[in-house]
Amino acid sequence: MKICRTIESLSSALSSVGQQSIGFVPTMGFLHAGHLSLVEKCRQENDLAVVSIYVNPAQFAPNEDLNRYPRDPDRDIALLEKERTDLLFMPDAMEIYPPGYETYIRVEGLEAALCGKSRPRHFRGVATVVLKLFNLVGPQRAYFGQKDAQQAIIILRMVRDLHLPVQVRVLPIVRDSDGLAMSSRNVYLTPVERRAALHLPKALGNAAALIHDGVRDDAAIKKTMADELAKDPLVCIDYIAMVRLQDLADLVAVEPGNTLIAAAVHVGKTRLIDNLLLGDLSC
Amino acid sequence: MKICRTIESLSSALSSVGQQSIGFVPTMGFLHAGHLSLVEKCRQENDLAVVSIYVNPAQFAPNEDLNRYPRDPDRDIALLEKERTDLLFMPDAMEIYPPGYETYIRVEGLEAALCGKSRPRHFRGVATVVLKLFNLVGPQRAYFGQKDAQQAIIILRMVRDLHLPVQVRVLPIVRDSDGLAMSSRNVYLTPVERRAALHLPKALGNAAALIHDGVRDDAAIKKTMADELAKDPLVCIDYIAMVRLQDLADLVAVEPGNTLIAAAVHVGKTRLIDNLLLGDLSC
Repeated sequence: MKICRTIESLSSALSSVGQQSIGFVPTMGFLHAGHLSLVEKCRQENDLAVVSIYVNPAQFAPNEDLNRYPRDPDRDIALLEKERTDLLFMPDAMEIYPPGYETYIRVEGLEAALCGKSRPRHFRGVATVVLKLFNLVGPQRAYFGQKDAQQAIIILRMVRDLHLPVQVRVLPIVRDSDGLAMSSRNVYLTPVERRAALHLPKALGNAAALIHDGVRDDAAIKKTMADELAKDPLVCIDYIAMVRLQDLADLVAVEPGNTLIAAAVHVGKTRLIDNLLLGDLSC
Repeated sequence: MKICRTIESLSSALSSVGQQSIGFVPTMGFLHAGHLSLVEKCRQENDLAVVSIYVNPAQFAPNEDLNRYPRDPDRDIALLEKERTDLLFMPDAMEIYPPGYETYIRVEGLEAALCGKSRPRHFRGVATVVLKLFNLVGPQRAYFGQKDAQQAIIILRMVRDLHLPVQVRVLPIVRDSDGLAMSSRNVYLTPVERRAALHLPKALGNAAALIHDGVRDDAAIKKTMADELAKDPLVCIDYIAMVRLQDLADLVAVEPGNTLIAAAVHVGKTRLIDNLLLGDLSC
């Protein structure tokens, strides 16, 4: 695996690609089985698998966890070698946002919904770094996890709106054996917090069971989720939402094939998200 | 000259370009000698000369002149044929901003300076449409006029920040025989207003003469301009500014090779801009 730490070395490494197809998995590192499922699919569908590791400062607010975000580059490199990644782009912070940097992408409606309410500049940072990485790597396909469903929807919209020549593939949530969605931030949880956090996938499971039984009404679905999350006082609800896939507008009834049920909670100091997708996000 | 009115026909026309270099001149039509100087240079420096005509709604505020902006597509087509343009992209409004469109580019500091103070969303619209057109046309070089100096500086910054593989060329202001900078909006002026408008290039000429005589101080330079513009009550000053090229920060003294002196005025209902560039904008 070739490792590039500068834009210059990345450009140089990519200059010899020729007609080979490039698949790309952008990450913030501290890789888990969710990331690796993306790399595996990327490996299968493209001649070259390119991964980036960059903890993007632009998507963290000043009060968020940029400085303590977990990092383990040596372990990440070993995992990516094992997945037969061809190229790892691991730039320094200054390489991506040099002094005088000031261009940002806003996906104006979508960025304000769901997580955007409590993280108002988060998706501005996400869209910007993803566009920059797309421009640097030039992939034919890029891979994202469904756990960050709003992120995926925003990137899909950006790709369509800006006519970017990349196919976005969104792969299913990978869960730990206890049901918790894989996330680099799970490492923050104490054992007691982890047990509390399991009410999040449980709440979504309850919602899925209701829908399976024919319930369509948003109030009933949100109530079963809120009841589940209320079972542990360590769980503090940020939001529970049932929205349409394209525009994240609130739904009053499940639209088959076009619904996202999403929730965000705080467990102690850790913010966790999870969702249930009734439809297809890839383009 | 091939004329494409849809993104699909543009993509199809460009699919056979192969290794030929593409030069691109984005315009809002109602072409004048300034535009044609860009097309001529584009023709000289590239295998293929592509021009777009699109009156971009995103760069007009609701109170501005979108609906009465001058249009004459037949005349434009004849002029571009004469300049041996290879391809004209002339899309409908809906083709560029279809329903659900919501991705915008912000060059956050630069967009708020100079004209951004009275036109707060103008450069958001400019940067967005230019990025979209760059992505659709895929040029190696793109051509802009120095009259819209802030626009050129914003596009140069966007290109650098987003790693776009395009060289931006900024060509000198073309003036009518009476000294007024060429602008599609000059057609709005009555003969009386046109005479009043000539105080704008005159003011910049006075500034240039002062600088030639060794004056460096911003107050003296701005005063000579304000005095000139005050000679006609039809002229209403929006701003007179002396700024650094890279960041449009106010200068208190001319920095040789790195200074833009710019002014915007209203003459009747018509807003006019002009500038004096002491430096080089192309990248």
